[in-house]
Amino acid sequence: MPPGLLDSLFTSQAMDSVFSDRAHVQGMLDFDAALARAEAKAGIIPARAAEAIAAKCDAGLVDIDALRRDARDAGNTFLPLHGQLTRLVAADDVAAAGFLHWGATSQDAMDTGLMLQLRRALELIEGDLEKLSEALAVQAGAHRNTVMAGRTWLQQALPVTFGLKVAGWLDAVERHRSRLAGLRPRLVVLQFGGAAGTLASLGDKGLAVAEALAVELGLTLPAMPWHGHRDRLVEAGLAMAALAGSLGKMARDISLLSQTEVAEAFEPTGAGRGGSSAMPQKHNPVACAAILAVALRMPGLAASLLAAMPQEHERGLGGWHAEWTTLPEMFRLAAGALEQAMFLASGLEVDAARMRANLEAAQGQIMAEAIKMALAQRLGQGVAHAIVRRACETAARTDRPLGEVLAGDSEAAAAIPVVELSALLRPESYLGGAEDFVDRVLAGRRGY
Amino acid sequence: MPPGLLDSLFTSQAMDSVFSDRAHVQGMLDFDAALARAEAKAGIIPARAAEAIAAKCDAGLVDIDALRRDARDAGNTFLPLHGQLTRLVAADDVAAAGFLHWGATSQDAMDTGLMLQLRRALELIEGDLEKLSEALAVQAGAHRNTVMAGRTWLQQALPVTFGLKVAGWLDAVERHRSRLAGLRPRLVVLQFGGAAGTLASLGDKGLAVAEALAVELGLTLPAMPWHGHRDRLVEAGLAMAALAGSLGKMARDISLLSQTEVAEAFEPTGAGRGGSSAMPQKHNPVACAAILAVALRMPGLAASLLAAMPQEHERGLGGWHAEWTTLPEMFRLAAGALEQAMFLASGLEVDAARMRANLEAAQGQIMAEAIKMALAQRLGQGVAHAIVRRACETAARTDRPLGEVLAGDSEAAAAIPVVELSALLRPESYLGGAEDFVDRVLAGRRGY
Amino acid sequence: MPPGLLDSLFTSQAMDSVFSDRAHVQGMLDFDAALARAEAKAGIIPARAAEAIAAKCDAGLVDIDALRRDARDAGNTFLPLHGQLTRLVAADDVAAAGFLHWGATSQDAMDTGLMLQLRRALELIEGDLEKLSEALAVQAGAHRNTVMAGRTWLQQALPVTFGLKVAGWLDAVERHRSRLAGLRPRLVVLQFGGAAGTLASLGDKGLAVAEALAVELGLTLPAMPWHGHRDRLVEAGLAMAALAGSLGKMARDISLLSQTEVAEAFEPTGAGRGGSSAMPQKHNPVACAAILAVALRMPGLAASLLAAMPQEHERGLGGWHAEWTTLPEMFRLAAGALEQAMFLASGLEVDAARMRANLEAAQGQIMAEAIKMALAQRLGQGVAHAIVRRACETAARTDRPLGEVLAGDSEAAAAIPVVELSALLRPESYLGGAEDFVDRVLAGRRGY
Amino acid sequence: MPPGLLDSLFTSQAMDSVFSDRAHVQGMLDFDAALARAEAKAGIIPARAAEAIAAKCDAGLVDIDALRRDARDAGNTFLPLHGQLTRLVAADDVAAAGFLHWGATSQDAMDTGLMLQLRRALELIEGDLEKLSEALAVQAGAHRNTVMAGRTWLQQALPVTFGLKVAGWLDAVERHRSRLAGLRPRLVVLQFGGAAGTLASLGDKGLAVAEALAVELGLTLPAMPWHGHRDRLVEAGLAMAALAGSLGKMARDISLLSQTEVAEAFEPTGAGRGGSSAMPQKHNPVACAAILAVALRMPGLAASLLAAMPQEHERGLGGWHAEWTTLPEMFRLAAGALEQAMFLASGLEVDAARMRANLEAAQGQIMAEAIKMALAQRLGQGVAHAIVRRACETAARTDRPLGEVLAGDSEAAAAIPVVELSALLRPESYLGGAEDFVDRVLAGRRGY
Repeated sequence: MPPGLLDSLFTSQAMDSVFSDRAHVQGMLDFDAALARAEAKAGIIPARAAEAIAAKCDAGLVDIDALRRDARDAGNTFLPLHGQLTRLVAADDVAAAGFLHWGATSQDAMDTGLMLQLRRALELIEGDLEKLSEALAVQAGAHRNTVMAGRTWLQQALPVTFGLKVAGWLDAVERHRSRLAGLRPRLVVLQFGGAAGTLASLGDKGLAVAEALAVELGLTLPAMPWHGHRDRLVEAGLAMAALAGSLGKMARDISLLSQTEVAEAFEPTGAGRGGSSAMPQKHNPVACAAILAVALRMPGLAASLLAAMPQEHERGLGGWHAEWTTLPEMFRLAAGALEQAMFLASGLEVDAARMRANLEAAQGQIMAEAIKMALAQRLGQGVAHAIVRRACETAARTDRPLGEVLAGDSEAAAAIPVVELSALLRPESYLGGAEDFVDRVLAGRRGY
Repeated sequence: MPPGLLDSLFTSQAMDSVFSDRAHVQGMLDFDAALARAEAKAGIIPARAAEAIAAKCDAGLVDIDALRRDARDAGNTFLPLHGQLTRLVAADDVAAAGFLHWGATSQDAMDTGLMLQLRRALELIEGDLEKLSEALAVQAGAHRNTVMAGRTWLQQALPVTFGLKVAGWLDAVERHRSRLAGLRPRLVVLQFGGAAGTLASLGDKGLAVAEALAVELGLTLPAMPWHGHRDRLVEAGLAMAALAGSLGKMARDISLLSQTEVAEAFEPTGAGRGGSSAMPQKHNPVACAAILAVALRMPGLAASLLAAMPQEHERGLGGWHAEWTTLPEMFRLAAGALEQAMFLASGLEVDAARMRANLEAAQGQIMAEAIKMALAQRLGQGVAHAIVRRACETAARTDRPLGEVLAGDSEAAAAIPVVELSALLRPESYLGGAEDFVDRVLAGRRGY
Repeated sequence: MPPGLLDSLFTSQAMDSVFSDRAHVQGMLDFDAALARAEAKAGIIPARAAEAIAAKCDAGLVDIDALRRDARDAGNTFLPLHGQLTRLVAADDVAAAGFLHWGATSQDAMDTGLMLQLRRALELIEGDLEKLSEALAVQAGAHRNTVMAGRTWLQQALPVTFGLKVAGWLDAVERHRSRLAGLRPRLVVLQFGGAAGTLASLGDKGLAVAEALAVELGLTLPAMPWHGHRDRLVEAGLAMAALAGSLGKMARDISLLSQTEVAEAFEPTGAGRGGSSAMPQKHNPVACAAILAVALRMPGLAASLLAAMPQEHERGLGGWHAEWTTLPEMFRLAAGALEQAMFLASGLEVDAARMRANLEAAQGQIMAEAIKMALAQRLGQGVAHAIVRRACETAARTDRPLGEVLAGDSEAAAAIPVVELSALLRPESYLGGAEDFVDRVLAGRRGY
Repeated sequence: MPPGLLDSLFTSQAMDSVFSDRAHVQGMLDFDAALARAEAKAGIIPARAAEAIAAKCDAGLVDIDALRRDARDAGNTFLPLHGQLTRLVAADDVAAAGFLHWGATSQDAMDTGLMLQLRRALELIEGDLEKLSEALAVQAGAHRNTVMAGRTWLQQALPVTFGLKVAGWLDAVERHRSRLAGLRPRLVVLQFGGAAGTLASLGDKGLAVAEALAVELGLTLPAMPWHGHRDRLVEAGLAMAALAGSLGKMARDISLLSQTEVAEAFEPTGAGRGGSSAMPQKHNPVACAAILAVALRMPGLAASLLAAMPQEHERGLGGWHAEWTTLPEMFRLAAGALEQAMFLASGLEVDAARMRANLEAAQGQIMAEAIKMALAQRLGQGVAHAIVRRACETAARTDRPLGEVLAGDSEAAAAIPVVELSALLRPESYLGGAEDFVDRVLAGRRGY
C-alpha cells in the first residue's frame, strides 16, 4: 500500500516497503514458518506439518482486505491471519493445520515479525547515514576555507567557515551512527513466550524451541519474553526522533541560509522542484520543509511511544496497540528526512562570494570581538569591551565602518596602532581552530 | 484508500472517507470550481471559462498515483493537481485553462479544501457524540439505583451507583459537545489570500471575490487570510485530543470493571470478538484497548500540532507541512474511539449482583466513613477517625467484619448503639446525592 | 517561593504569585473556611466552630517546609495541611477542630483551591491579552502603509505592509480572547463530592451545602463532582498552549526580521538587555528567545496534561498527580510569554527604510506575480507564468533588474507596454486588500 | 532552593541538590575557575590572575536573588553572574578581573556547568539503579515459586510466578543500566568554543587550552564545540524518560495487584503513609501514584527536549533556552521515581495465599490453554480450541468448575482421561520456563 498522498513528501519508498501491510503480514508469517521448523526439529510437531505450514507462509496468498475487515473485532491482525492461514494449510493437509502456531500467542508473531522489519529498517537507516556522512564529509572538506558569518541568536557574531558548519552537522550524524550501533544488540531480539510469557504450552521444551527459533530467524534470544516491557522498541523510536532533530537542525540552517536576504546556500533545483502556483520567481526549499516537518512531528510521536510504556501485567491493554503505527511511522519519517538530507548534502549550491559579501556588509561589526581581545591584552576585557561596544554603537548609528570609528577613537587608537587594526578586521585572521575542528571531525568518522 | 492494516482498529470508516486521498483532492477541486464561479460573477474571468473549469473539478478524473509521485518534488499536493487540472480543462477549452486558480495560491486551495473536510468531520463527530450521549443517558437512568463500590486510588472507598459512574462519563461528553459548538464558528472559515495574503492578484476586487467565494462554499469569511496563523486548526485538533482523553477515562473504567477479579461490567461479546489464539477462555476487551490506544496516541499528536504553530512570516516552512497528516489523523482516531465508545455504551453488560458481592466482600470496610461520620457527630472527626481506623485494621488483620469489631469496641459501642450500626453498614443508606447528581446530568443534556 | 533561577526568564512575577506554594495553601484553606461557613448555615456544624476554623485559615500560619516534608508520605499536600490546621484550631477550640473539613475529601480542597487560583490566573491572562491587543492595534494602525517584503517559505514573495503582518498577530490574539471567554464558564466551578463523589457524608444535605459553598466562593456549581473527569483543567491548559503557539509565531517573525541581514525590526533595547559576554556588537533578541522557548515547551506540557486524562474510577492514581505542577507551569509560561510579547509589541523598533530597501534589493523579482497577472489577462496564466519565470531566471543569472529583462523580452514587451511595466513594478500598486484587512481586524477587536 | 510544594512528592532530595540554583551557579563558576587555570598554564593569562579568579569562584559568594532579577533582561544566567564575579575579583585584584572568562562565551560556561551537574546526576541514577536491581533480584529469587495468575488484557490468562513478574521488571532495569553505560562517554564532554565555536579569541592556542581545560574538569574533549547540536543532552533526557516508563510499568502492575478485589501485593505501609482525610480504612498506594505521575509527565518533557533540537546556526534562539529547566526536571523526576521504586522493591508486601486464591477463584478457567494443548496432541489445535472454548463458556454460564464440565464432555473425556485432567488443572504443572527465565535474568545482571 502506498503512503497517503499527504504523507508522500515525508517518507521514503524503501522504508515504506519495509512497513507496508504486506511486509507486516509477511513478518508474522516468517515467525510461524520458523516456529514450525524449530518445533519439528525439537520433535514437537511432525516435520511434514512444518513443511506444509511453511509452504503457505507467503503474504502473497493472504487476503489483506479481509484482514483489515476482521482485525477490528479480533483486536489484532494476527488472529484473522491465523484463520486464513489455517484454511490455506488445511486445504492441503488438514493435520498440519492443527500444528500451526503451536504453543505461541498472537503477540509472539506480531512482535517478532516487527523485529524482522526493524532489523531491515535499521539496515536502511544505517546505510543512508553512511551515505549522508560521506556527502557531508566531502562538503566539509571542500569548504574548509570558505569564510562566512557565524551567527548566534540569528545575529552575525564572528567569522566561521562553511566547512565548520558542515562539520557540525556531520559530527552529529556520526554520534547517531554510534547510538544505532549501540542499540542494535539490545533491540533485535526474538519474542517468544506463549500466552503469558512462560512457554508453558511447550512443557519443558520451551527454552529449547526458543533457542532453535532464534537461530532460524537470526535473532538474539533475550533473557526472557518481554511482552509487557517495551523499552527496546521505545529506544529504537527515540533514536529515530533524535536523528530527526539533528537533521532538522541542518535543514533549519540551510533554510535560513537560502533566505532571499541571505542567499548563501540553496537546495539543488530541478524541473518541478519548489515552484509556486502564484509566483514565477520562487524556488521553495522543499527538502528543508519536508525535513523540518518531520522534526516537528517526531517529538509528539516519541511522546506517544513513551506514554504507552506502563503496560499492564503480562500483556497490556491499549499500550501495545498504541505502538503499532507509531513506531513504523517514526522509521518512515526518519528515512524520509534522511533521503531529503542526502539530497541536500550532495547537491547543495553554495555561494561563497555572497557569504563573503554578507560578512562585509555589516562594516566590520562582526570583528568586534577580535578587536576587543586585542585591546584586552593591554586594558583587560572589561575596559576593552566597553570601548568596542561604544564604537559599535557609534558605527551603527552613523552608518560608518567600525574600523573607521575605532581609528578615530583616541582610547582605542592609543592601544592599537592603525596598521594592526586593519589586520584585526580581516575575517581570515580570526578563524581560530575552525580548520582543526573540521579535521578532528573528519578523522573521527566511523570506519575511517 | 483504506487505512493501514494496523490502523484499521482505531479509525472509523466514515471518517476515513472524509480524509481519504480522494476527498483531499476533491476539497481542493471544490475550491477551484467555486473560485472560478465567484470570479466569473465578479467579471474577472469569463463565465464560459468558469463553466469549463468547474466541469473538470472532479476527483474521479484525477490520477492520484501521479500526484503522489509528483508531490514530493513540488512540495505540496496542489501544484501537481494544478498541472493535471490544467491539462484536463485545456483539452476542452484552452483559454479556460488560463483562468484556472486565478489569483490564488496553493495554500488557499489546500486550506479551504481542508476546511470543507473539517466541516463534514465535525458533523460526524457531533452526530456520534449525540448518539453516545443518548446511549449513556439510557444506561445512567437504568442503573440509577445499581449500588456498587466506589473506588479511589484503585481501592474501595464508598458505595456509589453505576448510574452515577455513567453520569460522570455523560457529563464529560456533554461538555465536549458544548466545546465543539463553541469552536465551530471560529473554525470553519474560508482561506483566500493569494500568494502573500493580500489578494493583490485581484487588484481592488479581492475582498469582493472573497465574499462571493465564501458564499459559494458556505464558509465564513474571516477578517483576513490566515496562512501563517494556525490556531483555528490547532483548536480543532486539541478538541479531538481532549475528547479522546474523556473516552479513554470511560474505557479505563470499563476495562478495570471487567477484570477477572472484579467482573462487574463487560464489553458486548460476539462472534470473533476478543478471542485469543492461545487461550480458549478469553474475552479480551477489544473496544477498551482500541479507545485506550487512541487516548495514548492523541497527546503526542496534539503536541505535534502545537509545535508547528510558530510558522514563519506570510507562509511558513515545515510547520504547515507538519499539520497535513497530523490533524486528519486526530479526527480519524477520535471518530474511531467514538465508534468503539458507542458500541460499549449501547451494549455494556452489567452484572449488578457481582457489584453487590464485591461491595460486601471487604466485610464492611467500605462503610468506614459512614460510621466515622456518625461517631463524629458526638466525638468530633479526629477521635472518630482514629476509632474507626483502629477497628478497620483489627478487622483486616483478623479477617472479621468491621461491624463485628466495632460492636466489640467499647468506645465505639458507647457512641453508636448496635442497632444503628447495622443501619450504618447498609450501602443503600449511604449514597448521598448520587441520584440527584444523575438527575442533574440528565437534565442538563444539550437539547433536552 | 521565587521561580527557579533558570525559569525566571520565562515566567511573570504576577502569575508566579498566583501559583506560589503559599497561594496553593491559601486556596485549600479558603475552601475549608467557606465549607465551614456553608455547613454552619445549613445547621450541620456549630456556627462557633465555623468561626474558629475560618480564623485559622490563613496561609501565614502554616509551616510550609513541614508540609513539603510530610506531603511525600501522605501522597498529597492537603493531608499534612489538615494536620497542621487541626492543631491550630484545636489550640483555641478543641471541639471546633473536630468539625474541620466536615464531610469533604482532600481532592475537594485541592481542586477547589486550584479553581480559585485559576480564576485569578485567567483574569491576569485576559488583562494582559487586552493590553497586548491594544498595543498591537496601535502598531497595525501606525504601519498600515509601511510597505515591506512579504515572505513565504522564507523567500521574498510579494509586497505586504507591516501593518498587515501586525494585524495577523492581532487577529490571532483576538481569537484567543474569544476562546478564553468561551471556556471560562465551563472551567471555573466548585469541586465538592466527598470521598467518592456522592457527598454521602452529609446525608441528604449534600446538595444544599454544595450550593451554599459555591455561593460562598463565587464559583459555579457543576452538575456533579468531577474528581475523575479532568477535561475542564485540560481545556484551560490547552488554551494556554495554543496561545503560546500564536505568541511564538509573532516572536519567530520578529526574530527573523531582526537578523543582521534583514534588520527591519528590533526588540526594544535597554541597559543590560541582550548583551554578550564575548561580543561587543551584540543586541540579542532576548524577548523573542524567551517566547520561543515557551512555545517549544508548551506542546510537551499539553501532552502531559492530555495523557493524564484517563483516570481510574471515582478518583485516580497518578493521573491527578501529574496535573499538579503541569497546569500551573502552563499558566506561568503563558503569562511570561505574554509579558515578553507586550514588551515587544509596545516598544518594537521598526526600520521602514530598510524594509523598503530589502524589497528593492532583489531588483524587481518580488513583483513577478504582478507582472504575470498583467500578462495573464491577455495570454492566460500558463503562458504568462512561463514568460515571467524565464525572465526571473535570466535576471537572477545575469544579476539584472527584472524590469530590464522583461523590457527586452519581445514576447513580454508585446503584451505589456514599457510604461505599464514600470507601474507594475511599484510595490505600492500591488498591495491588494492589505489595508482593508487591517481595518477589518481592527474593527473586530473585542469590545470595539 | 527546595522543590515546589506540589513537586516534592515526585523528586528526590539528592537530585534536587544536583540541580539546585546554587549548584547551577557553582557549575558555571567551576568552568571559569578551571578556564583561568588552563589559560594560565598555557601562558595566556597571568598565573596570579588565575589564582585571584579561582578564589572567588564560590557560589556561596553570589547573590542568587540578584541573578534572578537580572537574568531576565540579560537573556541568560551567566551574564549577570559574570558581572557579580567581576566585581568580586576586582575587589581584590583589578587586573585579574580583566582576565575573567577570557575568550569564552556564556554558553561555554552554562553548558559545561551543566555537564558537571549531569555527571553527578548520572552517578546518582546509576547508583540507585544498582540498588533497585539488587532489591528486585532478592524479590525475584524469593518468589521464584510463588504461583499466581498471569494476566493479559487485564484478564486471567495462565499461571505465572511472582518471581517471573519481578524478573521482568529487573530485566528492564538491567537494560536501562546498559543504556546509561553506553551513553555516558558520548554525553559527558566539555563545551568550549567561544562566541561562534571557533575559539578564535585564543588565536592559535584554542585547542591547547581546550585540552587543558578538559583535563582540569575531568571531561572528555569532543571533536568540536556543539553549541547548536544538542543530541547529547537529548539522549540523556530520553534515557530518563524511558527509564520512567519502565518504572511506570512496575508501578502500574503493583497498583493493580493492590486493588481491593485483587489484594495480592501492597506498598509498604507506615505511619502517615497513604491515609485519607475522609476514609479510615484507606491505605493509598502513594509510591505507585508518584511513579505513575512521573511516567505520565516524562513523555511530554521528552517531546519538549526533542522539539528544541533544530537550533539556528552557531548558537540558537529559544531552543537552547527551552532545555534549561526541561532536562534537569527529567533527571529530578527520574530520581524521584527511582527512589519510590526502591521503596517499593525493598518493602513490597506479597500475599502468596491470596495469589493462590485468586488463581483458583475462576474455577479452572485459567488452565484452559493447558487442557487445549493436551487435547491438541491428539486432535490438533483447532478442534481442541473449540472443545475447550465451548466448555469454558458452559462453565462460566453455569458457574461450575471447568474440570467438571470437561469431565462431562464426551469429546474431551475421550481424548483426556479424568486422571490426567486433574493433573492438567494444577497450576504448578503449567509454569513452563518460568524458573529458567528468572535464572537467566539473575545471571545476566551487570557485574554478576
